[in-house]
Amino acid sequence: MATVKGGDGLQGVFAPVVTPFGPDLSPDAERYIRHCRWLVSQECGLAVFGTNSEANSLSAGERKVLLERLVEAGLPPARMMPGTGCSSIPETVDLTLHAVRQGAAGVLMLPPFYYKGVSDEGLFRHFSEVIQRVGDERLRIYLYHIPPVAQVPISLALIERLLKSYPGTVVGVKDSSGDWENTKAMLDAFPEFRVFVGSETLLLRNMRTGGVGCISATANINPGAIHHLYVEWQSERADELQAQLDAVRAAHARFPMIAALKATIAGYSGDRGWARPRPPLVELDQTQSAALIAELRNLQFTMPELLGMAA
Amino acid sequence: MATVKGGDGLQGVFAPVVTPFGPDLSPDAERYIRHCRWLVSQECGLAVFGTNSEANSLSAGERKVLLERLVEAGLPPARMMPGTGCSSIPETVDLTLHAVRQGAAGVLMLPPFYYKGVSDEGLFRHFSEVIQRVGDERLRIYLYHIPPVAQVPISLALIERLLKSYPGTVVGVKDSSGDWENTKAMLDAFPEFRVFVGSETLLLRNMRTGGVGCISATANINPGAIHHLYVEWQSERADELQAQLDAVRAAHARFPMIAALKATIAGYSGDRGWARPRPPLVELDQTQSAALIAELRNLQFTMPELLGMAA
Repeated sequence: MATVKGGDGLQGVFAPVVTPFGPDLSPDAERYIRHCRWLVSQECGLAVFGTNSEANSLSAGERKVLLERLVEAGLPPARMMPGTGCSSIPETVDLTLHAVRQGAAGVLMLPPFYYKGVSDEGLFRHFSEVIQRVGDERLRIYLYHIPPVAQVPISLALIERLLKSYPGTVVGVKDSSGDWENTKAMLDAFPEFRVFVGSETLLLRNMRTGGVGCISATANINPGAIHHLYVEWQSERADELQAQLDAVRAAHARFPMIAALKATIAGYSGDRGWARPRPPLVELDQTQSAALIAELRNLQFTMPELLGMAA
Repeated sequence: MATVKGGDGLQGVFAPVVTPFGPDLSPDAERYIRHCRWLVSQECGLAVFGTNSEANSLSAGERKVLLERLVEAGLPPARMMPGTGCSSIPETVDLTLHAVRQGAAGVLMLPPFYYKGVSDEGLFRHFSEVIQRVGDERLRIYLYHIPPVAQVPISLALIERLLKSYPGTVVGVKDSSGDWENTKAMLDAFPEFRVFVGSETLLLRNMRTGGVGCISATANINPGAIHHLYVEWQSERADELQAQLDAVRAAHARFPMIAALKATIAGYSGDRGWARPRPPLVELDQTQSAALIAELRNLQFTMPELLGMAA
């Protein structure tokens, strides 16, 4: 595996793991564990409780139970980066402490996302309070910059200040801005910072510029191929591999992403229960699902060794 | 008091009650109770846990304790409209059930606010799940339309569908869009719907068009005068009263609103502890606070009977 940064931090390909729900909309831990096992078998890390996990549609209690179930099932905390950033300090501290105590190698931390137009000073105080209250040397924070959804950006100036105040604790970022110039600015400004891009469409550029990998929605359904590019980014075939990944991503991006990922898992596993999101999200309708699966078949897309996922 | 709609629903002037924090950033229940007592003495209802309450910077547990403390202190649940809308269904159900059981006359419900660009179908399913899970005939929901902050609007089509499915439960709205055309469209479309505007700057127009009052940040510091216009909206002096309210509002609107409200309470009560918000918000600096208080003195603004608030 390519090693591009020093230290023992996380790197490679991570899936913001999609969360299956039963007919009563409760999280389905059995399906969840099976999906995580499959992801790990494909060399994919577990960024559970991300945006694509519908994490903010779960209660804190539901998130804790799911993480505990994964650890109990033997999935490796060393490959986990749970999302723990909430709008409030106490809830962020609670989830972060829980993740650290479960042994998670890192946490992916949203900024507080209710108030818009907040200052870097206010965000610095928020993250500082969280770090000091958690008070655990094992804590490794990956900041989660996703302005299209959170609408609260994490600026370069804020990162610089956090890195100075909390070196060894604030160690990286997931840049889901989709703006390569922003990613490149982070890579240029902070050489030891571990930068993940938020989509595999930027994976090759990220690796060529000193990044450490990607945390991407479509790693839920295409983890092996994305990992292959991660390993082979210096090979002659890298651009070709990138183009193949982009086609699979583009097929999903025609639809609301989370519903599309679930439709693909349902379609390829034959387990229709997977298609269900929790409100306010809605599932793809039958026409949309059929069009998505047809396009994927046309791309000769496969999900290797997926049979174990069916209920 | 003017009665403009039938039934026993809420009406009049409500404050989204600002939440005081101690030096360790924990909610200060004693200061909170004193402020609520003062508001009620000024004929102001208690829309606790709104945007200006920093509700989403509090944990669910902190919100429950504060509400219980208010009820125990003898403040009237019949004049309470706690905010209970969270990003997730289970947390929204939990807070809503708690508010109903504490006797709150209504709840002010944000839409789930993490995902952006969600469909009316998805929002309808969210509110439906919440209503069915709460399953209490006493529930009265006021929808909270605040697109500048939540970034998830509540459309007229969604309101129409909710009113048809849950008549007597979905009873009103707080329109914090600041867009009078939107407020007027709600008033025109749904004659029995109880429409509160989100700022007293629109109070007179709202009352003249069939609205029931306002739920306004500045009701935290100017409740008596706003209530006076609410009562006197049909008088010859109404436009003059509106202009006086607008000047006080404008003085605050030059600064971040929540910090400004807290600075005014701190300045007029002499209780500097009031100035502190919870991150990610920050307090006004001394220059800003001094400028705000000076402008308010210049407007001959007073906070009658406030002395009891000092610690």
